[in-house]
Amino acid sequence: MAVKIALCQMMVDEYKEKSLFTAESMIREAATQGARIVVLPEMFCCPYKNVCFPIYAEPGDGPVEQRLAALAKELGIYLFGGTIPESDGGKLYNTCFVYGPDGSLLGRNRKVHLFDVNIEGGVRFMESEVLTPGNEMTIVETEFGKIGVAVCFDLRFAEWFRLMALEGVQMVVVPAAFNTVTGPAHWELTLRARALDNQIFMAACAPARDMSKDSYHSYGHSIVTGPWGDVLAQGDEKQGILYHEIDFDEVEKIRRQLPILSARRTDLYTISLNSKQAE
Amino acid sequence: MAVKIALCQMMVDEYKEKSLFTAESMIREAATQGARIVVLPEMFCCPYKNVCFPIYAEPGDGPVEQRLAALAKELGIYLFGGTIPESDGGKLYNTCFVYGPDGSLLGRNRKVHLFDVNIEGGVRFMESEVLTPGNEMTIVETEFGKIGVAVCFDLRFAEWFRLMALEGVQMVVVPAAFNTVTGPAHWELTLRARALDNQIFMAACAPARDMSKDSYHSYGHSIVTGPWGDVLAQGDEKQGILYHEIDFDEVEKIRRQLPILSARRTDLYTISLNSKQAE
Repeated sequence: MAVKIALCQMMVDEYKEKSLFTAESMIREAATQGARIVVLPEMFCCPYKNVCFPIYAEPGDGPVEQRLAALAKELGIYLFGGTIPESDGGKLYNTCFVYGPDGSLLGRNRKVHLFDVNIEGGVRFMESEVLTPGNEMTIVETEFGKIGVAVCFDLRFAEWFRLMALEGVQMVVVPAAFNTVTGPAHWELTLRARALDNQIFMAACAPARDMSKDSYHSYGHSIVTGPWGDVLAQGDEKQGILYHEIDFDEVEKIRRQLPILSARRTDLYTISLNSKQAE
Repeated sequence: MAVKIALCQMMVDEYKEKSLFTAESMIREAATQGARIVVLPEMFCCPYKNVCFPIYAEPGDGPVEQRLAALAKELGIYLFGGTIPESDGGKLYNTCFVYGPDGSLLGRNRKVHLFDVNIEGGVRFMESEVLTPGNEMTIVETEFGKIGVAVCFDLRFAEWFRLMALEGVQMVVVPAAFNTVTGPAHWELTLRARALDNQIFMAACAPARDMSKDSYHSYGHSIVTGPWGDVLAQGDEKQGILYHEIDFDEVEKIRRQLPILSARRTDLYTISLNSKQAE
């Protein structure tokens, strides 16, 4: 079954309302172009800085999410609403909310693996100083198949994607914001590898790059990769919508030709979700 | 600790003795150039065809392996002897024997995941029609650190390499023979991904390509990848020795900057070897 996906690689502004206006304009444009699955980037209405997360935070039923739910319903689309700094019970999470064509909340994914890195002469970022990690895998049911959700640094962990594939996802949607150090080195490689190893589609949406600020510079390069490990579509660093017509039947076709998931030596090794995850 | 590795990308002949002569010449040349770790490709003295495996098979203490052990001792090298069709108890395995500088057998790896694929308009190969899979992970201790061994199609299975990394390997050596369909599509991608995801070195050695036969065409492109996910050295499809000076200290350095292994959410998911593997 085929569906047009749109990744809205948008410029994030320090004024939340301006970012929201940009997001809404791009979502409307994507729907006009026939996209039924629309994706926003990580922290789409909050600068990617630890100091901003508490200031821009909202609860999951706050005005930003109400607006996204209403848009999904009005346009009849599946909306993967990037992430926001979500406040809940005195804690902050990096959270993606997913809405269906009727505006209902299909899933909520709180970033599971926080981004704590310190690259010599490169990038230092410690999300865990401000954010709390999520503990749950998120898979939403759509008319096109099961779609998983993960956030940015989650991409680094092959186990998480293997487990989603074993749960039957056809695609994983990833709001993300790699930077200009890790992006060129690892972005395309990791998104191709997760797709190939699990024989699924991957769709990762990043913010456009803003070099006018001295803070975190997004790599951009929103991308769709397929079950053969190929790049199906990829943007540059500028603002724009990346479209791709995805044929989910490709998943089964490629798994028949090159059996990986079914050829795993499950007699020799085991990978499983712990009970905590199910809580 | 640094060491020079040599991948002997050799032309395999239908005459076993000629292949052995080529292998020995390249091993000697590599040792002369200062390599302390020398690697041969998959099925280095047997054409890569199911019909050939029983004909070219030898036991692990047969003349081919005796010759490799003697060479390792004479030259004072670690020799990862590619693979041979190994006969044992009426069964055939695709097996890599590893010898230390004193000529002792350090490890024996029987290919765990057999190559069974049927790509439309491409390649059909069913190893399982003739070969029996191994059931054991192989990690050898060297003066440079722990080195894992895997064979070709094993590369497809991310779990296997994660488990080796968790066992402490600094590098995995992979005798392999991707073909001209899967090679361009997946070879470099997979070898970079396993290295990056596990923050280890990968060294994969393939046969040179022989287009004079109408059978299986090796992709060649023997390769060394590093813990940052980069290609450190890569050959073309022709016969030749690929050298690289590997600094194993890079593993810890990169793991400090970009923590992946240590940032796994082991509270949420578990990956483990089953008891059968230890038998």
